[in-house]
Amino acid sequence: MLIRHDGKFGWDSIPVLAYKENGSIFKDVTRQILFEPQPDLSCQLRYFEVGPGGHTTLERHQHAHCVIVIRGEGEAFVGDQVERIGDKDVVIVPSMTWHQFRATRGKPLGFLCIVNGERDRPMLPSAKELGELERNPKIAAFIRS
Amino acid sequence: MLIRHDGKFGWDSIPVLAYKENGSIFKDVTRQILFEPQPDLSCQLRYFEVGPGGHTTLERHQHAHCVIVIRGEGEAFVGDQVERIGDKDVVIVPSMTWHQFRATRGKPLGFLCIVNGERDRPMLPSAKELGELERNPKIAAFIRS
Repeated sequence: MLIRHDGKFGWDSIPVLAYKENGSIFKDVTRQILFEPQPDLSCQLRYFEVGPGGHTTLERHQHAHCVIVIRGEGEAFVGDQVERIGDKDVVIVPSMTWHQFRATRGKPLGFLCIVNGERDRPMLPSAKELGELERNPKIAAFIRS
Repeated sequence: MLIRHDGKFGWDSIPVLAYKENGSIFKDVTRQILFEPQPDLSCQLRYFEVGPGGHTTLERHQHAHCVIVIRGEGEAFVGDQVERIGDKDVVIVPSMTWHQFRATRGKPLGFLCIVNGERDRPMLPSAKELGELERNPKIAAFIRS
């Protein structure tokens, strides 16, 4: 019932996993699952760490995210905004909202992410959707796909 | 969609609330609600901070907790164990399990706590249940009720 932090963003008995198992486009991201859903608490808690220069997948989905940064800093694209994010900032990713996290500040970007245990699979942008996103120069300069 | 941390365990636009509104026994605890449940993410995320020497309520309930320490240190009683807890340790409180958090180390103890949005109300121990808990001397010395 106690999962000790090792002082280095690892946790006792929690394996460091690949970010994704499929061929999505991402760079230098790891995943640790800190809590698996159960009937009395129906969400999953993960810790993702993006290495300096790395990024998560540009995607959207029906399920929402609640993210809390706990290591380093970087930038997040959510919806139509790109924002710097740092320690203990909370980022809400609403349903069906394009998003991507990048470790742009020469440091790792590590964050907790809460999701519903039952959730849909992420969708990647089509060429048309990507074109729409890229109409905004700030977004075009930020996203990696 | 971005809730910035102010560097002092407060978050922009998030009020610092009383820990509980009822007459439960606790000491020097505040509560901030960082995420409210929505259809696409059905849990609530709170940040609780226990001041040095303070403690949460000794209670149990059907719903489970997933706790992550993000400030200071202290001790947690969960089930039949009392354990020191510190930064980024994860504490799982299973369903119907007695628990209490205390800031016993001369520092605040601040932690994120994830719960189901729909959940039952906490129950306090009866005199009989308290007597059963206190048969274990370590637990008897730790709990505050």
